[in-house]
Amino acid sequence: METKTGNIIIEKIKESKITKVDFSNLPFGKVYSDHMLVCDYKDGAWQAPRIMPYGPVSLDPSAKIFHYGQSVFEGMKAYKDAEGRAWLFRPEENQKRLNISSKRISIPELPKEIFMEGLTTLLKLEKDWIPTTPGSSLYVRPFIFASGSGLHASPADQYKFFIVCAPSGPYFAGKIKVLIEEKYSRAANGGVGYAKAGGNYAGQFYPTQLAQDKGYQQVIWTDDNTHEYIEEAGAMNIFVRINDTLMTSPVSDRILDGVTRKSVIDIAKAEGIPVEIRKIRVEELISASKNGSLKEMFGAGTAAVISPVSGFGHRESDYSLPELENSYAALLKKRITDIQYNKAEDPFGWRFQVG
Amino acid sequence: METKTGNIIIEKIKESKITKVDFSNLPFGKVYSDHMLVCDYKDGAWQAPRIMPYGPVSLDPSAKIFHYGQSVFEGMKAYKDAEGRAWLFRPEENQKRLNISSKRISIPELPKEIFMEGLTTLLKLEKDWIPTTPGSSLYVRPFIFASGSGLHASPADQYKFFIVCAPSGPYFAGKIKVLIEEKYSRAANGGVGYAKAGGNYAGQFYPTQLAQDKGYQQVIWTDDNTHEYIEEAGAMNIFVRINDTLMTSPVSDRILDGVTRKSVIDIAKAEGIPVEIRKIRVEELISASKNGSLKEMFGAGTAAVISPVSGFGHRESDYSLPELENSYAALLKKRITDIQYNKAEDPFGWRFQVG
Repeated sequence: METKTGNIIIEKIKESKITKVDFSNLPFGKVYSDHMLVCDYKDGAWQAPRIMPYGPVSLDPSAKIFHYGQSVFEGMKAYKDAEGRAWLFRPEENQKRLNISSKRISIPELPKEIFMEGLTTLLKLEKDWIPTTPGSSLYVRPFIFASGSGLHASPADQYKFFIVCAPSGPYFAGKIKVLIEEKYSRAANGGVGYAKAGGNYAGQFYPTQLAQDKGYQQVIWTDDNTHEYIEEAGAMNIFVRINDTLMTSPVSDRILDGVTRKSVIDIAKAEGIPVEIRKIRVEELISASKNGSLKEMFGAGTAAVISPVSGFGHRESDYSLPELENSYAALLKKRITDIQYNKAEDPFGWRFQVG
Repeated sequence: METKTGNIIIEKIKESKITKVDFSNLPFGKVYSDHMLVCDYKDGAWQAPRIMPYGPVSLDPSAKIFHYGQSVFEGMKAYKDAEGRAWLFRPEENQKRLNISSKRISIPELPKEIFMEGLTTLLKLEKDWIPTTPGSSLYVRPFIFASGSGLHASPADQYKFFIVCAPSGPYFAGKIKVLIEEKYSRAANGGVGYAKAGGNYAGQFYPTQLAQDKGYQQVIWTDDNTHEYIEEAGAMNIFVRINDTLMTSPVSDRILDGVTRKSVIDIAKAEGIPVEIRKIRVEELISASKNGSLKEMFGAGTAAVISPVSGFGHRESDYSLPELENSYAALLKKRITDIQYNKAEDPFGWRFQVG
């Protein structure tokens, strides 16, 4: 049976799958909620969005997504507080960035109203799917791909925007050991590295696998020209603490403008932590590690929030990071998740209630 | 009704669509033949391939192709000669390159037998779909994408290999005008530029559109670091003739090892044309254009075969190429297509009969 909320037609699932899910033992991004949002672009315009039972999508084998990688996505999380209210974190940042990514990949920009109304309507409906066990949340994945078909290497004439939801546990278990990569690269100058475009991720799998075979969990990407500067940590932004100064690389056309990254910068500044946004040399990390001034490294991103690094490899050497009692990573993670879960004041106005 | 040819199960279409197709007026890659080949990777192995009616594929919305751009493809053409025999051109080169691309994108390599037997069995069945009007051919598109689902940024556990066929006219009509790109880039050092990976193409659409808005048809990609060297022409390799010497950029991890590219090099050498495989500076093109020694530029690739360039733009200037009576582009195109259509001897052993 179909109903309508605002501009969105809703077809509800006949029987919820929720009782079959073990909410105390959730993987990351493998269990999906009952409903999804779908919106089609055709005839030169985004059409009316619909919410329907989560289920398969049927595509022509010549749909351009299969051939030319024309896709963009966002990653978000919904949290539930002690009173059972549902919250998002800075969703308008994701909305803006989705269109920035789309522009670079020649995907038609999605009207803000479709994104925001679709997101909030879907999350109101899926509120029971937001887990409450510590460290867990409802991972929300908006994405757009080229559904129009044709074997000519040119933009498609049809696209599909989806939002799917996955109740999820933590992305990484514990600290990660990373390898500074000097052969493979993530992004070119003038390329698509700043966009959350599908192709940016597929290209990382092989070098990451090579690093994993050597005992590391993630790769630290360096610039493709000199490999002298660190840029990102796997699919996260990278932070480094030398003495008491927190540093991160500036965003560029090679580096994603992460929502967690900029939130961490703002929180750190509010905490009185000296923050430097500047290019960070690999040599600087190594000498700081040797002289004891390298205190911390961590990745920052929506999926992992803040992921502390236990050590890094460079060429044939391994460098360990100290165990700190009062780490910036722990402090910043507590501050940001307390805002996300509505456990603390939100001086920045980042929390966004959805139900 | 199902039959079996070799290792391949064949389910034939009930009624062919072929009579509905206007073979005298074919677009490129928009009309598809009756059948396609499908082969699944699951449980750690490529399964038995099947030929079935061309039709939609059903996927979970969390299939990794939609999120992480994990896909590779090949482009090939089948030709029919005056006696009605069907031919491919160097198909084993495509088979090898597909696996080279797959390895970089963390897609499991496809056994050669599945590729070659699948290809030849499908083309025998689709032989009537090979057009015979001049300049036309059956465009053959083998491709693999990640069908396994999950919102974790890591390789999928399931993949699909398809071969689809599209009777096609020429890719470009006439000569093309190109713009030397100095802001956007196609590939990074240590990136995936040498792979026929989907994401390489999506990233080209926007800069190409900007060039088209200025009156050019394609972009000449330069290296992402200095923009001083030309690398590729749109989705083709690039050739330049200065005086009587034919030049092309060496392949690298940024440049595709094109089958047409290496065939052109071999034919040119056999014709006694001096060939230089070396990096080509933008400045060299401009000064050669000014002093009259720049005779020709052309793109080379399977879809367009050889695509002559009428002129190029650089910054705010345009440079015209002369009209030559005996161009290398025309000679080389005739030599290569005469081999492809079985109109001439094949001293290189490139032709491959399929039916």
